[in-house]
Amino acid sequence: MVEEPQVIEALRGVQDPELGRSIVELGMVHDVEVDAGEVRFTLALTTLACPLRESIVENARQAVLGLGNVEDVHVELREMTEEEKQQIWPEKPQQQQAGVAEQLNDIQHVVAVMSGKGGVGKSSVAALLAVALRREGKRVGVLDADITGPSIPKMFGLSGTPPMGPVGIIPAETEEGIRVMSINLLLPEEDEAVIWRGPLISGAIRQFWGDVLWADLDYLIVDLPPGTSDASLTVMQSMPLNGVVLVTSPQGLAGMVVRKAARMAEKLTIPLIGVVENMSYAECPNCGERIDIFGPSKSEEVAEQVNAPFLGRLPLDPELAERCDAGEIEAYEGEDFEPIAEAIAERVPEEASEPMMAQAHPQGPRGR
Amino acid sequence: MVEEPQVIEALRGVQDPELGRSIVELGMVHDVEVDAGEVRFTLALTTLACPLRESIVENARQAVLGLGNVEDVHVELREMTEEEKQQIWPEKPQQQQAGVAEQLNDIQHVVAVMSGKGGVGKSSVAALLAVALRREGKRVGVLDADITGPSIPKMFGLSGTPPMGPVGIIPAETEEGIRVMSINLLLPEEDEAVIWRGPLISGAIRQFWGDVLWADLDYLIVDLPPGTSDASLTVMQSMPLNGVVLVTSPQGLAGMVVRKAARMAEKLTIPLIGVVENMSYAECPNCGERIDIFGPSKSEEVAEQVNAPFLGRLPLDPELAERCDAGEIEAYEGEDFEPIAEAIAERVPEEASEPMMAQAHPQGPRGR
Repeated sequence: MVEEPQVIEALRGVQDPELGRSIVELGMVHDVEVDAGEVRFTLALTTLACPLRESIVENARQAVLGLGNVEDVHVELREMTEEEKQQIWPEKPQQQQAGVAEQLNDIQHVVAVMSGKGGVGKSSVAALLAVALRREGKRVGVLDADITGPSIPKMFGLSGTPPMGPVGIIPAETEEGIRVMSINLLLPEEDEAVIWRGPLISGAIRQFWGDVLWADLDYLIVDLPPGTSDASLTVMQSMPLNGVVLVTSPQGLAGMVVRKAARMAEKLTIPLIGVVENMSYAECPNCGERIDIFGPSKSEEVAEQVNAPFLGRLPLDPELAERCDAGEIEAYEGEDFEPIAEAIAERVPEEASEPMMAQAHPQGPRGR
Repeated sequence: MVEEPQVIEALRGVQDPELGRSIVELGMVHDVEVDAGEVRFTLALTTLACPLRESIVENARQAVLGLGNVEDVHVELREMTEEEKQQIWPEKPQQQQAGVAEQLNDIQHVVAVMSGKGGVGKSSVAALLAVALRREGKRVGVLDADITGPSIPKMFGLSGTPPMGPVGIIPAETEEGIRVMSINLLLPEEDEAVIWRGPLISGAIRQFWGDVLWADLDYLIVDLPPGTSDASLTVMQSMPLNGVVLVTSPQGLAGMVVRKAARMAEKLTIPLIGVVENMSYAECPNCGERIDIFGPSKSEEVAEQVNAPFLGRLPLDPELAERCDAGEIEAYEGEDFEPIAEAIAERVPEEASEPMMAQAHPQGPRGR
């Protein structure tokens, strides 16, 4: 059965979007009671007129339901006392407002890497693209939008919690100077599960955009999770994307799911930069034979079907898998990827898509 | 910009959970107006006292927001006129109630196949498991819970809309008699994107459980999508699972994400049946060399870390990829998988987990 400390722990993950801090740390959570599967608690808000009230309550509910074994959650609301408010804003109220970082950032191009289907090496392609652009002297960041299966930090050998500056979260930095933000940098252990429903996933992604001090970047690469649900939708609706790179594998099945991803981008009017085929073939280390592990390539066909340029093939390279597992992707030679990175950089549209407004995210924790 | 027909098309995907039919087909949608990014329409419900009112409205909102380019959605509610009601229930009201199918079904064991990480061959393992059990003479069903990247129908060569019987949806049937339900059977085209936020995803999965006439089954295999968000959470919370099979690949990265999946199952008190390693190695067709494509295996270690038995390894077999793409997975020999299927069947716990109650899904379209 669920107990009080677990409820508080779950609520610690819920932020007040206006203040950008955990509702538990802000002293908003009171009177937690657990009675068989029923959980009750009171949320003390800075003002009951808070326009984001519904989403805070919903996020808190979902966080507690996410514990499992919880059948129902009752949330009472009250306004904070003056004393309680004093503790939150010791001197200047709203000193650390959400979205301040965003106003300070200057990001030239935002490129999302997407596949629809998992495991085709989307994260490797996103990381290799960042590395290749960095080698060209560009200022590069990677936003890991895969909240439930984040693999970017491990590839770059990053761990540890990023520090919180006065206006936002400072991204982690790789050896070569690529700035990285990922939920895995914020978890106590890298294999901790993030059991969140959509609204929390979307909230985290919007914070990675609005509350992270990316500073000046030539390219921000966004690594999308598989699927066309909340995470992809939030990235496409709330960030000014210049375009999407689609990653596929030679399997017909992968092609089908990639076409779904392409249709999503089309519906949301995000330009397709092109299609990259990963895991194209392997080379036998003994006899040099080229093996079509996933069958013959159909990716040029897929590119044609989705009306996007075909950008090239990447072989299955055990060295890349090893480098990724060892956190050394920046040391990987990756000659095969160079022409692909060049083709992508050439084709990134100069103009970014217009992000949607706050109303499009009735459940989101932040109005952007 | 969004136009009226698109709005109606989007709303066509929203069901009245009580009636199990599209709100558009039921004649519930009226007075659609689009004005710059704002969409307005009226929903005529059979009764304004409908307990599922909120979820219908929310699902309708989300469906329209999913179109993109929509900033705000205003939904007016009214009660249907007597004449309108007559058209819905020509003779017996509520003849086809949600959840009736569930009461008629008799399912002995429900086994979820999960990986956390995408592309490790979870769907192939789910399908191979179904085929192996079927070869043993068992009555088997496959519930494809991967709503945004469904691959089960293609593997079995299934297409076409399943018929709607008087008490529920009749699942598709493979050549060998495996019953299958997947969102891809309900889409006009297999590569149509399902751009839904979490509540709709969860609703579809719950319908696949409650409104599909699975009839008598020895095993229902549930193919989970990657990730630990809505789809996995809904399956774990709302179905009586006997256990979870975890699929991993030799990559260290896959191991990390699989450990997240294991932690989720643990938190929701679902027993782990064991760990299967897929894509373990490939064989060179020229010289027979065994190639560790994704590096040396670490899966026994992963199994130990998550406290579950290690059930075996599957090589990367181009024939399997081909058979899957051709819809002929039932014709695949799959000798390597036989002992794994046996080990799974032996280890499935007899007792199922207790599903959570309806209140745990405030946004779901059905009270279960």
